Amino acid sequence: MTALKNDRFLRALLRQPVDVTPVWMMRQAGRYLPEYRATRSKAGDFLSLCKNAELACEVTLQPLERFDLDAAILFSDILTIPDAMGLGLYFAEGEGPCFKKPVRTEKDVADLPVPDAARDLDYVMNAVRTIRGALGGRVPLIGFSGSPWTLATYMVEGGSSKDFRTIKKMLFGQPEVLHALLDKLALSVIDYLNQQIKAGAQAVQIFDTWGGVLSTPNYQAFSLQYMEKIVKGLIREHEGRTVPVILFTKNGGQWLELIAATGCDCAGLDWMTEIGPARARVGDKIALQGNMDPSALYGSAATIRAEVQRILNGFGKGNGHVFNLGHGIALDADPAHAKVFVDAVHELSAPFHA
Amino acid sequence: MTALKNDRFLRALLRQPVDVTPVWMMRQAGRYLPEYRATRSKAGDFLSLCKNAELACEVTLQPLERFDLDAAILFSDILTIPDAMGLGLYFAEGEGPCFKKPVRTEKDVADLPVPDAARDLDYVMNAVRTIRGALGGRVPLIGFSGSPWTLATYMVEGGSSKDFRTIKKMLFGQPEVLHALLDKLALSVIDYLNQQIKAGAQAVQIFDTWGGVLSTPNYQAFSLQYMEKIVKGLIREHEGRTVPVILFTKNGGQWLELIAATGCDCAGLDWMTEIGPARARVGDKIALQGNMDPSALYGSAATIRAEVQRILNGFGKGNGHVFNLGHGIALDADPAHAKVFVDAVHELSAPFHA
Repeated sequence: MTALKNDRFLRALLRQPVDVTPVWMMRQAGRYLPEYRATRSKAGDFLSLCKNAELACEVTLQPLERFDLDAAILFSDILTIPDAMGLGLYFAEGEGPCFKKPVRTEKDVADLPVPDAARDLDYVMNAVRTIRGALGGRVPLIGFSGSPWTLATYMVEGGSSKDFRTIKKMLFGQPEVLHALLDKLALSVIDYLNQQIKAGAQAVQIFDTWGGVLSTPNYQAFSLQYMEKIVKGLIREHEGRTVPVILFTKNGGQWLELIAATGCDCAGLDWMTEIGPARARVGDKIALQGNMDPSALYGSAATIRAEVQRILNGFGKGNGHVFNLGHGIALDADPAHAKVFVDAVHELSAPFHA
Repeated sequence: MTALKNDRFLRALLRQPVDVTPVWMMRQAGRYLPEYRATRSKAGDFLSLCKNAELACEVTLQPLERFDLDAAILFSDILTIPDAMGLGLYFAEGEGPCFKKPVRTEKDVADLPVPDAARDLDYVMNAVRTIRGALGGRVPLIGFSGSPWTLATYMVEGGSSKDFRTIKKMLFGQPEVLHALLDKLALSVIDYLNQQIKAGAQAVQIFDTWGGVLSTPNYQAFSLQYMEKIVKGLIREHEGRTVPVILFTKNGGQWLELIAATGCDCAGLDWMTEIGPARARVGDKIALQGNMDPSALYGSAATIRAEVQRILNGFGKGNGHVFNLGHGIALDADPAHAKVFVDAVHELSAPFHA
């Protein structure tokens, strides 16, 4: 394995000293980049792009050519696991992801296989290996998965949802069926992320996009509990390094103490949570990742720099901050503004690490 | 004016002793009730129902016939003010509210009139007077408005939105234009709510449905600041009683201290915030309203009662709790389960007031 030339990201996740605050952007390989759109049109549809290791590698590296990013993230979809379970993932124009076979009954859950990630999701592992090779130690590679709860919302609703009515009916009406589904998903995610780590992922992030629609006790019972199982089941040392784990629950700012108690290394913050108070609450236990409103990229360079400065001031001096947006970059973001953002983080953060 | 036979709701909002915890449900007059659907089909479309005082009164009273509720709420739409400003509100099938003339530019904002609520929104005041008369002092009547920020999201986006891209572009790119719009809306809401109070509303609630998509400083600058202006501009004593003000920011649980500092009497809580810790934070300053997940009504009677008990235990003994759902009741909720909920609040809360 090539030595890592830039390990700021991994060091910050472990709350070790760095020269400047590392930064990456959720969804940094994506539609806001014309070169991404070009590669995607070569691939055909989105899933074909995910399943082609060379092209997935190409789009993963594209933002690194433009911006001074401190990490790359595997280009893939969060719904690869349910697809491998046989639900028939497809993307309807303007509707987002859909499943041909939603999961609704006890029998549906009982019939679901736990995928063997090395075999059934080999295209993801091929992509990880290809990207890792192409990176040549430039920056670390992040692997990822959706959380069991978040995957379950799509599987039970049959796609995206505004009110999560179907899965909430299951949660309140047949909680044991939902737990059986979440158990299978937790096992699947553990294997999936461990295979990504073996294939070369140097950190992993669990995206709990929809944990924030639950009450606190239901978040603990139906989302966090399963993320904790995953954290405890992951390979934590690989290639002589710690493999840090980031948990990101959107709208989860009220639950940081609970998240910190799972054994994860870092909590992702959306932009609704102030990073200063967040650090005061859990900064002695975990690192924090975030958290500029992606919409701030719609502002001027001066506005973006001011917002970066505000967040750096909020976190303050010392270790344990990975800068990021609080959610994926918007598809109509101006790449020039993304560059202003990334450069501002490095430039303005130096005094905080002096 | 007839004397008020049940003032539990008003007393709880002012943190005065009550015999049992008062309860009402957001969107309690609505599509989950077959008698509502019958009245609505008489009226034609939704806006015609809002504009017909007799029918609006009829649907307002319907849930009181079924359930032992401690308050009635004016049946109306949150977008009456932008409609009165001339934006042309209409409801597209399956899409929710839309405006024919969205507000996008400095000139659009400058051209907007501040409606004279007594004249331009007389149909709302007629409805308030009619309902108040029909209630005959049975329970208090709640008036309401959308918050300036929430109204602005619909006006600028032109309808509902998933990512609030257009108004966020205005916020980060032309904040002064957005402030001018919010200023006009705050003036409009003050007049609108004061006219409702004069017409007979005995408490008012401001629905800030979308404040929770903002960062903390932007929530303060673009939503809370304007709600505070409204609170300070409202008639607070009428008919010899205090007129309490409830602020409800969905996903605003992290900002309760800020909300409590506006001078409002009560904060509405969604179900993601635990009411016990919320009370510990602000319960010496304001009352709290909420906060069962509306989806809990999908569960069994036993599940619903357990959830009510859990929330009552969370708040604990003493004054200042109005029970409610954490959001509007779902259109496919079972009315029999709503009855279980309302009855459970009264039955199970008595020991907390002994």
